[in-house]
Amino acid sequence: MPSFTVFKGTKDGNPKKSTTTRPDELQGDQVYMRITASGLCGTDLHYKTADMALGHEGVGVVEQVGPDVKDLKKGDRVGWGYEHDCCGRCQECLKGNECYCPSRAMYGYADLDQGSFGTHAVWREAFLFKLPDGLSDEHAAPLQCGGATVWNALRAYNAQPTETVGVMGVGGLGHLAIQFAAKMGCRVVVLSGSDSKKDEALRLGAHEFHATKGATELKTETKLNRLLVTTSAMPNWDLVLPLLAPGAVIHPLAIDEGDLQIPYMPLLLGGIAIRGSVVAPRHLHNEMLQFAALHRIAPVVETFPMSEEGIREAMGKLEKGGCTSGRC
Amino acid sequence: MPSFTVFKGTKDGNPKKSTTTRPDELQGDQVYMRITASGLCGTDLHYKTADMALGHEGVGVVEQVGPDVKDLKKGDRVGWGYEHDCCGRCQECLKGNECYCPSRAMYGYADLDQGSFGTHAVWREAFLFKLPDGLSDEHAAPLQCGGATVWNALRAYNAQPTETVGVMGVGGLGHLAIQFAAKMGCRVVVLSGSDSKKDEALRLGAHEFHATKGATELKTETKLNRLLVTTSAMPNWDLVLPLLAPGAVIHPLAIDEGDLQIPYMPLLLGGIAIRGSVVAPRHLHNEMLQFAALHRIAPVVETFPMSEEGIREAMGKLEKGGCTSGRC
Repeated sequence: MPSFTVFKGTKDGNPKKSTTTRPDELQGDQVYMRITASGLCGTDLHYKTADMALGHEGVGVVEQVGPDVKDLKKGDRVGWGYEHDCCGRCQECLKGNECYCPSRAMYGYADLDQGSFGTHAVWREAFLFKLPDGLSDEHAAPLQCGGATVWNALRAYNAQPTETVGVMGVGGLGHLAIQFAAKMGCRVVVLSGSDSKKDEALRLGAHEFHATKGATELKTETKLNRLLVTTSAMPNWDLVLPLLAPGAVIHPLAIDEGDLQIPYMPLLLGGIAIRGSVVAPRHLHNEMLQFAALHRIAPVVETFPMSEEGIREAMGKLEKGGCTSGRC
Repeated sequence: MPSFTVFKGTKDGNPKKSTTTRPDELQGDQVYMRITASGLCGTDLHYKTADMALGHEGVGVVEQVGPDVKDLKKGDRVGWGYEHDCCGRCQECLKGNECYCPSRAMYGYADLDQGSFGTHAVWREAFLFKLPDGLSDEHAAPLQCGGATVWNALRAYNAQPTETVGVMGVGGLGHLAIQFAAKMGCRVVVLSGSDSKKDEALRLGAHEFHATKGATELKTETKLNRLLVTTSAMPNWDLVLPLLAPGAVIHPLAIDEGDLQIPYMPLLLGGIAIRGSVVAPRHLHNEMLQFAALHRIAPVVETFPMSEEGIREAMGKLEKGGCTSGRC
């Protein structure tokens, strides 16, 4: 059987080159592709000590297609993300909400023998996203999970172009949220620890920027109808809640353990909602890619070689709060 | 100047008869009414030691109208609730969201010289709700705040007739939520401490009932798309979160101090929202009254005389977890 290279987690957290075999003949709607780029996201760090192939923000070029593949063909550029499969029959799947399918196959839980760190991969056509022209491989990669997560928070919960959208944090998620919301017509207010990201935030489309560190009170020109919390730590609510318009929705997006804790009466009296969410279902993922291509929305990327050393270096940098994409 | 009787809070928490004057001539859209019934709600207990007239779930008969009154006339039956006035010009007012008007006049903050405990009151026509025939005075009273609060949670946030609605607690709010949701076509699942309210809940329209006290795991026939928490204590989330369908909304409705604390990852992975809310804006309040009359939705009431002793007795009973309405 033919095989390809993957990079796996190891006990000591240093990614290790390994090999995965693929069937001689592709089955059903399987697609075999050559990986051209991968993003690197916080979840990858979470699994770096696990015995599994790493990477879940993938981009590749189709090399071969299975007998049931309908639309993709050799040479097409595709992306894929956190979810690889779903049952297609449950209520959530039928609603186009396959992110909540109880039988979904996800990074970290299924298909542990391959990821987006490697030379090749085999995925179902149903979970591949054809990339629009005008979106480069390395720019498309971080959209497959980070981009999809912030896009979903905006689009699945009915963000309107007339809203003021707050974005807390200017990292992998936040710097995409600023661009998406700004291009949707929203007024964008960025909250960040210090002023160090101010120029970047304004350049990406923010209309206002506020440093939160040490602040005891903030005042924005308009109140926030929506707040995307992209920082791993929850905000100082006493500082942030007074900024919210009645009926505002808070979207905590970063993964975190433990409890969410928030003052109760301001939530009640302001009609405020906190909305948990994950990545985007496929129909929203597709529209995100089109939107990004149309509006030339691009992640800020730093590239590393797709090698044990390149991945280790990228991971180290992310742990210190750095890069958003690796490219082979 | 003519005067009327009100019942005020006192330092020792025993309501005291007092007198409020009214202008000889009513101004603008003021309406002078004779109070025929009042509900009693937890917020009244909160203010029982304050130097203010008590009661905010009022029903009365119009006796006299001011020069700008347009629709009401002598003899009309009306109700009123928590909010007495708003600016009419801010974005929230213009959206029909006057409950979030920053200049709204509310019970406990404005018009402290009159309430629904008394013989008469003077309110703006704009904040009076004409009662439909078929809704008695004593049944209409608890709808003015308790009913409006649960109705708003369902209607302002798009509850669908195909949903499964969970109701936690079968008290003043919960027993109305069961009826509203059931008559909207929803499947209603009631969670209550013990089995003692089971028969009542099923009689009011619940399709399922589960006692939570001592339970380590619950299982409902269908997952909950929405959960109205009407108990003053927050639920045991470990017991309740597994009951929720993807994308479910939790509506905490009881007033409480301190922080809301809830496990974070289940919220994120389930796409769960927590939505704070208050009473209903007037357009929803009106439709609630029509809906209640059409479907013969009635609070379970216990009546007390509108007197110092009657109010004290009713308050004592509510503190022990009892009644929902007092009638003069």
